[in-house]
Amino acid sequence: MAGPITPQRLASLFRPRSVALVGASDKSNFSAVTYRNLVEFGHADRTYLVNRRGAETHGRPTVTSCAAIGEPVDVAFMMVPQAGTLDALSDAAAAGIRNAVVLSAGYGEAGEAGRAAQAELVAHAESLDMVLLGPNQLGFANFVHRTPVTPIPGLPHESGPVALLSQSGASSSAMLDFAGVAGADLSYMVTLGNEAMVTAGHVLDYLVDDEHTRAIAIFLETVRDPAVFRAAARRAAAAGKPIVALKAGSSELAARTAAAHTGALVGDDRTVDAVFRDLGVIRVDSIEDMLITAGTAARLGRLARPGIGVVSISGGACDILADRADDLGAELPAFAPATVQALDAIMPSYGTVHNPLDVTGAAIIDPTLFTRAIEAVSADPGVGVVAVVNSLPWMSDGRPYSGQVFADAIGDGMQNAAGPVVYVNQVLQPITAYTREVMARARVPHVIPGLRQAVVALHNLAWWSDATRDAVSGTPQAATPQAATSQPGTPVAVPEASARRGAWSETAARALLTEAGIPVVPGEAATSARQAAKAAAGFGGPVAMKVVSPDVLHKSDIGGVRLGVTGDEAVAAAYDEITTAASNVPGTRVEGVLVSPLRSGGTELLVGVVRDPDWGPVLAVALGGVFVEVLGDSALSPLPVSPVRARALLESLRGAALLHGVRGTPPADLDALAEVVARVGDLALALGDDLESLEINPLHVSGSTIEALDAVITWRNA
Amino acid sequence: MAGPITPQRLASLFRPRSVALVGASDKSNFSAVTYRNLVEFGHADRTYLVNRRGAETHGRPTVTSCAAIGEPVDVAFMMVPQAGTLDALSDAAAAGIRNAVVLSAGYGEAGEAGRAAQAELVAHAESLDMVLLGPNQLGFANFVHRTPVTPIPGLPHESGPVALLSQSGASSSAMLDFAGVAGADLSYMVTLGNEAMVTAGHVLDYLVDDEHTRAIAIFLETVRDPAVFRAAARRAAAAGKPIVALKAGSSELAARTAAAHTGALVGDDRTVDAVFRDLGVIRVDSIEDMLITAGTAARLGRLARPGIGVVSISGGACDILADRADDLGAELPAFAPATVQALDAIMPSYGTVHNPLDVTGAAIIDPTLFTRAIEAVSADPGVGVVAVVNSLPWMSDGRPYSGQVFADAIGDGMQNAAGPVVYVNQVLQPITAYTREVMARARVPHVIPGLRQAVVALHNLAWWSDATRDAVSGTPQAATPQAATSQPGTPVAVPEASARRGAWSETAARALLTEAGIPVVPGEAATSARQAAKAAAGFGGPVAMKVVSPDVLHKSDIGGVRLGVTGDEAVAAAYDEITTAASNVPGTRVEGVLVSPLRSGGTELLVGVVRDPDWGPVLAVALGGVFVEVLGDSALSPLPVSPVRARALLESLRGAALLHGVRGTPPADLDALAEVVARVGDLALALGDDLESLEINPLHVSGSTIEALDAVITWRNA
Repeated sequence: MAGPITPQRLASLFRPRSVALVGASDKSNFSAVTYRNLVEFGHADRTYLVNRRGAETHGRPTVTSCAAIGEPVDVAFMMVPQAGTLDALSDAAAAGIRNAVVLSAGYGEAGEAGRAAQAELVAHAESLDMVLLGPNQLGFANFVHRTPVTPIPGLPHESGPVALLSQSGASSSAMLDFAGVAGADLSYMVTLGNEAMVTAGHVLDYLVDDEHTRAIAIFLETVRDPAVFRAAARRAAAAGKPIVALKAGSSELAARTAAAHTGALVGDDRTVDAVFRDLGVIRVDSIEDMLITAGTAARLGRLARPGIGVVSISGGACDILADRADDLGAELPAFAPATVQALDAIMPSYGTVHNPLDVTGAAIIDPTLFTRAIEAVSADPGVGVVAVVNSLPWMSDGRPYSGQVFADAIGDGMQNAAGPVVYVNQVLQPITAYTREVMARARVPHVIPGLRQAVVALHNLAWWSDATRDAVSGTPQAATPQAATSQPGTPVAVPEASARRGAWSETAARALLTEAGIPVVPGEAATSARQAAKAAAGFGGPVAMKVVSPDVLHKSDIGGVRLGVTGDEAVAAAYDEITTAASNVPGTRVEGVLVSPLRSGGTELLVGVVRDPDWGPVLAVALGGVFVEVLGDSALSPLPVSPVRARALLESLRGAALLHGVRGTPPADLDALAEVVARVGDLALALGDDLESLEINPLHVSGSTIEALDAVITWRNA
Repeated sequence: MAGPITPQRLASLFRPRSVALVGASDKSNFSAVTYRNLVEFGHADRTYLVNRRGAETHGRPTVTSCAAIGEPVDVAFMMVPQAGTLDALSDAAAAGIRNAVVLSAGYGEAGEAGRAAQAELVAHAESLDMVLLGPNQLGFANFVHRTPVTPIPGLPHESGPVALLSQSGASSSAMLDFAGVAGADLSYMVTLGNEAMVTAGHVLDYLVDDEHTRAIAIFLETVRDPAVFRAAARRAAAAGKPIVALKAGSSELAARTAAAHTGALVGDDRTVDAVFRDLGVIRVDSIEDMLITAGTAARLGRLARPGIGVVSISGGACDILADRADDLGAELPAFAPATVQALDAIMPSYGTVHNPLDVTGAAIIDPTLFTRAIEAVSADPGVGVVAVVNSLPWMSDGRPYSGQVFADAIGDGMQNAAGPVVYVNQVLQPITAYTREVMARARVPHVIPGLRQAVVALHNLAWWSDATRDAVSGTPQAATPQAATSQPGTPVAVPEASARRGAWSETAARALLTEAGIPVVPGEAATSARQAAKAAAGFGGPVAMKVVSPDVLHKSDIGGVRLGVTGDEAVAAAYDEITTAASNVPGTRVEGVLVSPLRSGGTELLVGVVRDPDWGPVLAVALGGVFVEVLGDSALSPLPVSPVRARALLESLRGAALLHGVRGTPPADLDALAEVVARVGDLALALGDDLESLEINPLHVSGSTIEALDAVITWRNA
């Protein structure tokens, strides 16, 4: 193609002045609904119908080719069968049309032949300098400029701040329905299909620049272009636009095969999870939470702090909210003394002043209790957003809404509040035109339907607000990999190409770690029993002995490891046993035995880096022993990892209490440990793309004494 | 009161022929709406208004007292202020009214004075032989017999199979709203208030006998009468009526104080969780899941097996369903070969036959693909219910519903299916009258709105179906505590009353365990260093030595424990050190030192029983070491616990893999272990109500060798 797919380039696709429906036919329901949508949104006079036989279609005259339109057209909406698509593209290009939206299925999703057809389609579009959305999708709708180019019926006529992207065409209609139910008004709806040319990342990038879009909801089954997605997500974070992703595939059990244990910890989905966390992409687990979270994020924007202050007239609702906040880790901070004082002054004597706040039935007599409570809670220094729980109607019963006075009182509180306030309905019910009337009268701009939904949305927004705060101020949360490798303090001489192959011996790995400033337990490579005994005597106390061989990856499996050996005789005997055992394994070159002082007590960790084919090097930390073996307790992050991030990873382990010192172990020096973990990541980055995996297992921690006891380095080339 | 609150007695409350509104007033919104509800439901001519001054109210004449009504009345709905309630009760009783529903707040929920007023209220009602619902609630509605006795507006006019109970009046209106949204048609709605006389358990009991009610949704903040609740829940299980509870308080951090470690594991909420599981009560965490699960359970009834077969036209929906099933542990079984064969015959070549099944776009061309796929999947031997994912409309766009043909094809599949089939809408949207029209045309009786909701509801129903299957066939899942104490094989001489006090010494505890058939590590109580050495020599190998004293509960805290002592001299020295250390603690009588062989390797568990004030003795099992100390990994159950149940508890531990043998430990004999755990529970039951706690910590397990290494027994009396 002539140029990259920039937001500027996509503007003519997503904001077309005119559209050609290629393959328009009365027999096609797709054609009929797409045309009807364009007409209903006032686009009739800028829509051209192209029908091969020139037959009147949808009650309008047609042309037989794009070239015959005679007016400039921005988008060709291709409803022709796969066999005719290439010719139709040529026809459109000849007419000066630079964008095609291709509906047909049977491409990349349909086996070998389909993939070949898709490659041909892309090559053809590129040769014509055309941008292509699809194939195998259901178009898009630009609600801001009222341009629906999609056969999905029942499109909303309101527009709003949420963009909806979906890789699933079949589910996008349901998502649109729910956006309507939840009152998440849309700026754009884009079905992505096979993303043969325009990928999710490109559309994200376009939306970052779109002034109408404040948040983006996206349903993904796979991330097709990780680099573009990553760059767009970073731009979105910097622009303060949350991305809320429903990413399918969390149940996938496929784990990456790798030489090191780390491989088993790093599944595709866990890597995506870690990458999304790194990028500030919110991950949800239902269509409902995706759209409610995106709608709430678009309305509220960034929260100054994560605390949620709750004001409700139902004690039951308070309890449910508090329980779900506890489940999800959302913060309901205790009120500050000044807040308590202010609330004490307005609450009835039988009420209890705490967060969540039950304003009690006294608010039925005096609804301004709501107003005043909202004002007080919004001023609390620990509260980032006030959630006011009440009800709203969704159908009129023919009488004036009896609860209007309460909605009004809450609306008044919102006007006077010191910070953001959001209305929460106790249950998930539709935000209908009638609901909006009640809200408009009360000057309530937004409502979250449902208690659980509210906790999910506000917790997600609070997390995003913190996770991307630095991105906005211009300091990226994490430096780019390229930048990190050149950071001072860890200059590493990357081994020459001939050495970057296979699995390295422990001796080689130890040397590399040491050079990179990663502490390694002392060790002497002995080449005789006598030398081993001498080394052990030098260390004093029991020693660990391990075979040195470039051919043995799992030393203990072949009898190549002895731990806790004490005394000259025992050490000498162990030397002989180890070397004999290893020599008995065919093809094993035995170079000697590594003797190290035995470390006991303290805590053992695994720190490893493996390469993800999509996302590059990923670091894993895990607690050794039962935690990792029985519970798979580990934490991941893409590289680079700063010491601060490394510490957060360590603290996120389920068994983190072990590092804080339980059962008689001294507390680990977490700052020092985080520093070492970050350095392992930096080293892996510095070693470049040939590195397959780098794993320290165990990394022994006892207070501030941190030492790698064993390490494995493997390279991609055999 | 004259008699117990039986279902028969409650019939005149919940199915009243006539109602008196006592304290009717035009000034009261409660009065106006309650009256309006009765009129709207056709109850006007059986509603009497009682107004102290006899003023015309709600456009109708009134009487000044119940006695003046002159017709038999079943229920007095009391809207009078607290001060007038006792007199109003007397008046109602004098008129022969046997049931009162009391709205007023300011009773048990309002401090000391309120509690006194509530006690007086109950005593007065009892003296009048009246049954009293409330106080501090919002009445009830019997939708089956169209008798709403409640000031809640907007009541549904359809009736159905779900009863809704709520301790929260303020949230019950929202719950009613959502029942409407979700299409969970109600038989009854009962607000419970303070449950001064009629408690949740009584109402449950009434509903078990109600032929119209097939499932019960209940919002609880506390279980006020555990014995009645428990009995009613057991009857509901036996009657095949699921109870779906949203119980607030899961975030409560209060843990019971107890002499033993077990106390820290057994919080109020974890106990409720264990009790509900034991009773087959489904627990959910949102109002939405409560009503959707109850509605689904009421329509589908018991599932023959837990497997869910999924049929969908959206691959995205399939992915989301599979992910949520994985999260929640719901089963999506692989299809049997015959099912695969049947589906292969109807699916297009590019489709993939597995569960969840994406019928592909081919179903758009030929909707009978849905019909045939449903038939095939419903016949699969692993499938207990088929979930068909599609869409339904909730608002008409003025055109005939374009998806009717698909709904019809699904309805056809339901008619022909070999087992239960449920329609699932992709998102949570209201089931409106229009939705019901579409469903009726397609002969679809029920729909679950939302993918996540569907997985939650079907997983809950599957769990309930299994958990209560035996209850129906007449074999209670667990015997009653009374029955269990007399079970053969564990006859225990309960210590006499004078001995049932304080904390027992290890020696006494060991004797009791041994008598009860619980294996205990061998031990000799030595009273001299020489005797200790002799004992150790007799056991051979290293020994564990522990002080014997009735005054020391935590022996290691005072230097009273030595582990791994080897050799005559060392044992003798340890004897002296232990006795000296213990003697130095003031008030400690030292009776000697217990010498036992040291057990190492294998796995250590904690098995304990503590008494819950509400629910009686609760058994906890936990894995020793980091699992319980760092992760709080434990499982609870009320007693008695059968060996089958004990095994399920062990298997439910997060670290259960340790028992299956990892890291070189031999697999535990789980049947033998479960037998010992069950016996600990039986012993605790047999010891009766004076027992405070009984704890074995650790219980050492190595293969089929199971031994209590230490035990503590404490009694409620000091």
